Order: sequence, then C-alpha cells, then structure tokens
Amino acid sequence: MAFPEDYKERVKRINAELMASMDVMEDKELKAAMAHYPAAGGKRLRPLLATMACEAVGGRWEAALPFGTALEMVHNFTLVHDDVMDEDETRRGIRTVHAQWGVPRAILAGDAMFARAFEMVLDSDVEGDRAVELVDILARAVRLLAEGQQMDMSFEDRKTVTADEYLTMIERKTAVLYSAAAQGGAIVGGAKEPVQEELFEYGRLIGLGFQIWDDVLDLRSDQKTFGKPVLNDIRNGKKTIIVVDALSKLEGAARTEFLSVLGKKDATEKELLRAKDMLEAVGSIDHADRVANEHIAQAKSHLAGLKEGPHKDALKAFADHMVGRKT
Amino acid sequence: MAFPEDYKERVKRINAELMASMDVMEDKELKAAMAHYPAAGGKRLRPLLATMACEAVGGRWEAALPFGTALEMVHNFTLVHDDVMDEDETRRGIRTVHAQWGVPRAILAGDAMFARAFEMVLDSDVEGDRAVELVDILARAVRLLAEGQQMDMSFEDRKTVTADEYLTMIERKTAVLYSAAAQGGAIVGGAKEPVQEELFEYGRLIGLGFQIWDDVLDLRSDQKTFGKPVLNDIRNGKKTIIVVDALSKLEGAARTEFLSVLGKKDATEKELLRAKDMLEAVGSIDHADRVANEHIAQAKSHLAGLKEGPHKDALKAFADHMVGRKT
Repeated sequence: MAFPEDYKERVKRINAELMASMDVMEDKELKAAMAHYPAAGGKRLRPLLATMACEAVGGRWEAALPFGTALEMVHNFTLVHDDVMDEDETRRGIRTVHAQWGVPRAILAGDAMFARAFEMVLDSDVEGDRAVELVDILARAVRLLAEGQQMDMSFEDRKTVTADEYLTMIERKTAVLYSAAAQGGAIVGGAKEPVQEELFEYGRLIGLGFQIWDDVLDLRSDQKTFGKPVLNDIRNGKKTIIVVDALSKLEGAARTEFLSVLGKKDATEKELLRAKDMLEAVGSIDHADRVANEHIAQAKSHLAGLKEGPHKDALKAFADHMVGRKT
Repeated sequence: MAFPEDYKERVKRINAELMASMDVMEDKELKAAMAHYPAAGGKRLRPLLATMACEAVGGRWEAALPFGTALEMVHNFTLVHDDVMDEDETRRGIRTVHAQWGVPRAILAGDAMFARAFEMVLDSDVEGDRAVELVDILARAVRLLAEGQQMDMSFEDRKTVTADEYLTMIERKTAVLYSAAAQGGAIVGGAKEPVQEELFEYGRLIGLGFQIWDDVLDLRSDQKTFGKPVLNDIRNGKKTIIVVDALSKLEGAARTEFLSVLGKKDATEKELLRAKDMLEAVGSIDHADRVANEHIAQAKSHLAGLKEGPHKDALKAFADHMVGRKT
C-alpha cells in the first residue's frame, strides 16, 4: 500500500473511533468542547503510525486502533491546552476551544480528553501486562509533553538556546507521541522488546524530523496551504533550530537587525519577510531542511530488522512523508 | 487505632511518597509549580482511606500507598486547574499556582501531575489485571471530576437546581475520589468483587457526606479555623443543598431578599450574614447537617460484611470524622 493515499479508509475508521469515544460523556457542553478539534479533521498521523507499526511486526492493524486513537486524543488535548496558554484565537481556520467556550471549559475539556485516552486503551482487547505497558507509555508521554511545552515557553524569554536544548525540547513536545505510537503499535502486535525499541527509535527520529520540517514550513509555506499565519515563529520569538543556527552565524549589524525583529509581536510583514530572507541568505533554512532529512534517513535505518514487504515499505513511506508534506 | 490521631506517622509516609514522586521532573520550574499545593500539607484523607480499606480486607496498608498517593496527586491537580477556572488568588492562606506563576504554568503543572499519578500506580508492586483495574478507576475518576466541575460551573448561571442534580454534581466532583480510594484500596488488598463494591459504596456515601458537611462549614465556621473566607458559597451563588432547600421554602419578600444576595459578588458582610441567618431560620442548614449525617450512617452499614476488629473500627471512625471535622 502506498502512503498516504491508500490509507483513506483507515483514517475514516480512526475518525469514527475517535468521535465514538466521546459518547460516554454525559455533559453535552463538555462533550461539544472535547469534540471541537477532533471533528475538524486531521491527518491522524499518530494513530496511523500505531496501526502500521502493529502490522509491520505481524499484528492485525485493527488491534492497535484503540491505542492509536488514544494518542490522537492526547494530541488533541494538548492542542486545547496549548491554545489557552498561547492565547491563540484560531487554529487552522477554526476558532480555538477557549475562544469559543471560554478558558474554564477549555481546561476541563482537555482534562476529560486526557482521562478518556486512558479509558480507551483499557477498554480495548489488550489485557494484563501489555495494557499496563501501553498505559505507562501514554502517561510518560503526557508528562514529557508538559515538560516540552514548559521548555518551549521558557525558551521564548531566553536570549540564547543551543541546538541540543532545542532538540531536547522538540523531542519532548513533538517526537514523544511518534515514538509512543510506533512502540505501542509494536507492543500490541506482539513484538519482542528489541523490536519495540527499534520502533521506538524510528518513531522518535521521524518525530524530530517532523518538527524540524514544521519549522521550515513556517518560513517557506504560505498561509493558503498551511492554514496558519506564516512567519509566526519569528514573530513569537521561537528559538527553532533555524534561528539557533542563524544566531551562530549572523554578526554585527545583520545580527542586530535580525534580533530586533525576533519576538517582535507587532512586526510588520515587511520586517518578517526581511528576517526570513536573512535566514535564507545565511543558509539556516537549508541547514534545517538537511537536518530534517538526516533524521528521516536515520529513522529508516532502524527498520532494518523488520521483515521485508508492504508493511515495512509503508513505514518507510511514512517517514519520507514527514519531510515531504506541504502542510 | 483511633482516627485520626494514631495515623500521624502514616500521613508522614504519604507526604514523603508524594513529594518524592515529583523527583522525576527535569524541569525545575514545572516541578516547583507541581509541588506547591502538595508541599503546603493537608489531611491526606484520600490516601489514608485507600490504605485503611486495604488493611480492612486483610492487606498490608503500605501496598496501597502508591495508589492512594496517586489519588492525592489527582486531587491536587484538580485544585490547581479549578483555581485557574475560578480565578481564585489564594487557597487556604497561600497563593494559588496561577497567581504565583501564571496561568500557562498552572495548566501545565496540573497536566503533569495528572500524568504522574498514572505513572505512580504503574511503578508500584501491583501488576497485571489488578494494575489495569486501578488505572481504570483513576481515569474514570478524573473524567467524572471534569463532568462534576462543569456541572458546578453551569449551576452558578442557573436559576434553579434540584436536590438530585446537586447530589449528582457532588458525587462526581467530590465523592468520586473517596469511592475510588476505598475501592482501589480493597483491590490492592486482594478483596473479592462484592467486597470491592461495598467499599466503593461506603466511599461514595462518605464523600457525599463530606461535601454536604463542607457546605455547612462554609456557613457555620469562621475564617480563622477554615482558612478561607466564609460565606463564599453565597457570594458565588453556589447552589448547595442548603440553598436548594431554602429556595423550596422561602416565599415572597424573604425569597426576593435572599435571591438578591445569592451570587452577588460584591455583597457586604452584613448582607451575607443576613442571608445566612435566613438559611438558619428556615432550617436549611440543620437540614443539610442531618442529610450529611444520614449519608455517614448509611456508609457505615456497607461495612457490615467486613471482619470485626481495629481496621473496621478505623473505617467507622473515618466516616464519623467526615462530618465531625471543623475544617
């Protein structure tokens, strides 16, 4: 099967599972807030990865559906809370949960989504020690997501951040759900521990590649395709790998000019585009592009032990998709 | 052993476990926010109950320490998020987490505390299906807590609430952690399902009694002993069982006067005291006192199947403490 075009039916199953998981909620108001982002669609990369990892180790993909969908729920819960923290009014063209229903309901909806994610794993056919492992992966992921978000916020206030610090931050904030998806899918599929670990590493590396590519897209895509204001990262003073690299290269007046725009909330489009051009000129966007692709290549090397065939090929295509996507 | 005076050493163990559970956090800023309420102390009723239920069914109390402490962590996480929602600046004499570190960090700290609670259960000696049951209890509890908080908030905007609606709300918002503590402790102690269910019911009923008594205390205690402004519930327009009962009795001018103060954020102390006097005069505070005590008596009847002895007596004393406490 070719990724992603041959997985459309699977995405429909994931969506159905995701929406059905909220039926247990008795409070209609809370349920509406919980369903807001999930109902808006999405590529469902994390649940897809869980099912694909499960298949690649010899399991039935459907068996990993509850765990994968739980990860999607966790992902959506973090979006709800992150939007409150960032005070964002819109997300990919729709109003954010707190903009629509207020901060209290957004906080509560996130908490309930988090709780539901655990119940979804436990309601599945996976039992005993294996269920315990999945729950452990989920809990650890959320704890690290919180640490990553905290790092991300504190980086905005800091003058300098090293490339290593940036990578640690995105490993927690982004990669953790991909490593959890691949590892968890392998566990559901009955893989032995060394195979689980290889898939964990594959997921971690594609997650890093995904985020670095996201940083590239923020600068190189336009609003039409990406659905959110471009150059947002510069405006918000995000210390992405691109900015970190540029600050190690820019000197004198150029450096001063770049720093004057970085984190300037009311920067004009002209100023932002000028800053972007400086990042291009100094080669930092190309650098990030290269680093993203290196992570994907490394990730694929961790699939070496898997049986050759369409399921393994699909995981390779999935990895390539992480840095090929336009949105 | 007499409750609570003979359980001081156990509370120390719970506190040590609780604080140690945060050592895994790498981010110092997030860790400080997470530790803020736990470090401020507390009676630790939920973890105590878990250990006492475990003993009462023949287990070692220490075995229920991780689960009980996880419940305390969940309780503290909900306090952090509730304070953000209610925009409270102080809690029992200390600054709230968001007042001290801002809303974003308070939201994140709560999320991380929630995640840690699951890890704490999974790190314990309880394994396999029993661990799965404990995690399920925890996840269900948080989901219901969110629904209860949502009900509580929407009640504030409503003109009328029935006694049944109020009881459903406090069952979710308060009782759920007591039923979880008693049931979970029984599971850890190796109790069979019927015994688990009896203890669940015992916990549910004392939790209801606890909250109704809390409503009484809000009116009858003073700031010195309770550590929070009294008559807060009237000022905030809370539809407690006391208010629900009064509204079914008050008529004419008295009703109009009472309603004019209920939910009046800038009510004077004189107005609040007058409203309180009306609640006393119409017998609604006595009514709540009686209902709280009835719940405690009912709760104790669910202990009938347990072996006679000091551990069962302790659970009875625990139940009595729910409505005897002054704070």
